[in-house]
This record gives sequence, C-alpha cells and structure tokens, in this order.
Amino acid sequence: MRWRLAVAYQGSRFAGWQVQPGERTVQSALEAAAAAVVGHDVRVEGSGRTDAGVHAWGQVCALSTTTDRSAKAMRDGMNAHLDDDVKVLDALPCPADFDPRRGAKRKLYRYTWLDRRAPDPLVGDRCWHWRTALDVDAMDAAARTIVGTHDFTSFRAAGCAAAGPVRTLEHASVTRRDGLVTFDVVGTGFLRHMVRILAGTLHEVGLGERTPSGFSDALAACDRDAAGRTAPAQGLALVWVRYDDPVLDGWLGELRGVDVTPGA
Amino acid sequence: MRWRLAVAYQGSRFAGWQVQPGERTVQSALEAAAAAVVGHDVRVEGSGRTDAGVHAWGQVCALSTTTDRSAKAMRDGMNAHLDDDVKVLDALPCPADFDPRRGAKRKLYRYTWLDRRAPDPLVGDRCWHWRTALDVDAMDAAARTIVGTHDFTSFRAAGCAAAGPVRTLEHASVTRRDGLVTFDVVGTGFLRHMVRILAGTLHEVGLGERTPSGFSDALAACDRDAAGRTAPAQGLALVWVRYDDPVLDGWLGELRGVDVTPGA
Repeated sequence: MRWRLAVAYQGSRFAGWQVQPGERTVQSALEAAAAAVVGHDVRVEGSGRTDAGVHAWGQVCALSTTTDRSAKAMRDGMNAHLDDDVKVLDALPCPADFDPRRGAKRKLYRYTWLDRRAPDPLVGDRCWHWRTALDVDAMDAAARTIVGTHDFTSFRAAGCAAAGPVRTLEHASVTRRDGLVTFDVVGTGFLRHMVRILAGTLHEVGLGERTPSGFSDALAACDRDAAGRTAPAQGLALVWVRYDDPVLDGWLGELRGVDVTPGA
Repeated sequence: MRWRLAVAYQGSRFAGWQVQPGERTVQSALEAAAAAVVGHDVRVEGSGRTDAGVHAWGQVCALSTTTDRSAKAMRDGMNAHLDDDVKVLDALPCPADFDPRRGAKRKLYRYTWLDRRAPDPLVGDRCWHWRTALDVDAMDAAARTIVGTHDFTSFRAAGCAAAGPVRTLEHASVTRRDGLVTFDVVGTGFLRHMVRILAGTLHEVGLGERTPSGFSDALAACDRDAAGRTAPAQGLALVWVRYDDPVLDGWLGELRGVDVTPGA
C-alpha cells in the first residue's frame, strides 16, 4: 500500500530534509515514526529537499508499506511518534507509481523579513530580522521581472547538481502584510539555493543598494557573482506543492495553510 | 525620567507577568534588563497581569529612571539583555504621572483555536488545539450577545480580587481566518480569567453542547457553575491596549501587530 502525506515542519532544529548519519532530519524523523506505526522499515520520499532551517507548511511525501493501516491510523499514529516541530497534516492512499518529486508540477516558496528595530518573540526564527525598513515597492518591481523562463545561473549555488540552469517561474511578487515583508515565488522547478539567492538579491534592492533594473541585470549576467548573498534559511518556507491532479490538489488545498494564493 | 514601553512576549516559558520569587516572569525579566541598562534597580508596571502561558503582542508598561538614556538605548539595550521570547517593541518618554494600568481605557484580547485533527508545528503553543471542527457561526452568535455592560459573575474565577463583577465589553466576535478560529473581545476592564472562561464556554457552543441562547443564559445566571471550563492559557493573547491619548495610541498603532481591528 502506498500513501501520500502532507507534512508541516518548523525547520529550526532540523539539519534539513534529507537523511544524514548522526543528524536530526525531517526525513529520518518521518521514517522512524512511520516504521513505528507499520512495523517495518520505511523509506519516505519528499517532493524535494529543504535546507537546514527551512520550514514547510505543506511538504508532500510518499511511502510504501506492506501492512494495512487506515489513513487515520497513519496520520495520528505517526503524529504520536513525532516531536512538536514536525507533524503529518493528513494521509491519503495513492497509486503505487505516485512519485512526489517527479509528479510535482509547481511549488510556492515564501521568504519572510521582519524589517524594524525590535525582533518579534511571536514570529521568532521564521523570518530574517533586518533592523531598517525595506523598500517593498522596489523589491516587488524587481521580483516581477524574473517571471518566465530564464537561465538562472546567477541564482544557483556552487554545488548545485541540476543538469541545466533554465527554470520557469509562474509568479514572483513582494508584499507587506501584518508588518512582515514576504517574497512569494511559484515555479515549476528550482535550482539549489535559488530562492534564497533571489531573496538575498531582492534584499539589496530593498536597501536601495541595487535598482530593480540592476536586479534584472544580475539575471541576464548568468554569473553567480552578479547576484547578492544567499539569504538566511530561517526566512524560507515551502508553502505548497501542486500536482495538476484534482483529487490530490483538492485534498492539499483543504489542509490549513496549504491553499495559499501567492502574493495575497 | 519616565518611559512607556510596548512589549511583546511568547508566554509559554513564563510563570505569567507578575514577579514571583524563584519564578521566571515577564515583569522580572523586564526589570532585570532595565536595571542593566540604567544602572539602578527599576520597577516595571504593566497595564495588567497576564497568566502563566498567555502571550502579548502589545503589552504596555512603564518605568522610572534617574539616569539619562535615549529611547533607542532603552529599547535596544533592554533587548540585548532579554531572551528571544520577550522583546521591547519600542520606548517612548512619558509624563511622570503616567500609570499604564489606571490609564488604560480598553484592551483587545484574542483567543485562538486550531480545530482539526493534526497539530500545526508553525503555530505551536499559541492556540488551543482541538481535534474536531468548531461551529464558528454559533460561537459568533453567542459571543455577540455579551457586548454591553453586564454582571460577569458567571465568568469570574473564584480567587478574583476585583471589587465588583460589572464590566463593559465593546466588541465580541468569533471568526475563522487561515484555518484558525479566533475570539476577539474588547473591554474596558476584565475580571480574573474572564476571557478564558468566556472562551471555554464558547468552546461548548462550538461543539454543539450549548446553544447561543444557552450561552446568554449562563451570563444571566450570575453563577460561575453556569458557565463552562476555563480555556487553556496558551490560546490567549493580549493584542493591544488603548489609552484615548492620540500620541500614545498613535505610537502603539504604528508597532507591528498592535494596531489590529477586532474581528478582522
């Protein structure tokens, strides 16, 4: 039997998604919880990796099991074995060939800044705290220039293992809401650290150190040195994953926080 | 010199607001931080106490000092001495007779539920997690019946030290937003545990165990036994305090999270 899981996590205390010997990772926490519920070793596959410190509202993953369990038993049983910073939102049976990574059609990532002097104890480490105000209009103007299909070499980490640098972004915008500045980006695929380098470069636009057209120039340069720094992981969250599958997308959309309109 | 402070805290690891020997409280944390900045013992007075586990987005407090410091030095200096779960949003000089408790004209409290099977790692202990859906329309109908001036004996904790049980509520509503259920209540004053007993009784309405008119009956009974249980502290937050003072209210309104329209 194969299961889809929608999973949320607060990334601060995890060494990222992927299993690593001796490290606490989201994948290893989920595999241990699933094994405890189904009674055998389980491999949990995700829609993609997230870096150490990155959060997820609606990560999608899949696992296969040889024992019979209800969706309720999978969800509540795994949650009983998981710490408070990672939880299964729900479990749904799926076809044996469901691949959460290859099947994913688009993802929404959100990068969040708190731009004022004082930190916020109720937001904590879910934002990049910057002590001066950011120019949101300039950041938004810059962000909108990257929508479309482009060579994103400038926004690709040195160790990126992807075959090519061309990716398609369907949405990119920066808005201020509740005193936080958020960069929403929807893409059909992302390079390593791509969203964080985009955020770090947009940050320079927000500070007035780079113009919106200077941001476009960085994209056109196809040179990592033309872009800004990699923004800290703690400001980044994987908000949702979409599969162009009415059943799966409908189910994901009903889960809290997962059905989010980018930029709104 | 006298200062007003706007303060936010995540209440989970505090034994409430008020100084208690051997306990970590918000007041004692602020007094220690202020003393470190101004170089002498300081008494910090709040607009009111909050219980252990209750959060604040915009608590207002005041302190007097004999040494000269800038507003920036007070805010940033205190924050450097405070842990991540309590921070000074800003500091503003004020008249020597400013009393943050007696001067307070109204407060907005917000009680928050997460009403679904799975907990939310990104909301954590800032809500009451209930595993079945609550009837928000019924809760809202019930909440609206308590607006006005009433004898709130039914919603008053046994140990309440207030002289009388009559209080005035200017707003009360229940709404669903982002998958969370929130009860907003604005009042000119509150009895001990009043918001948490109101929330606990509204919770019974949300479960269908009590009708909206049964909620009104509990108010009319003037009997603590006619109301529901005291809801857990972790769902409660003091959102803002108002003083009917354009300078002070304007300053508070500019701070993130503090200028919140109840019910919206």
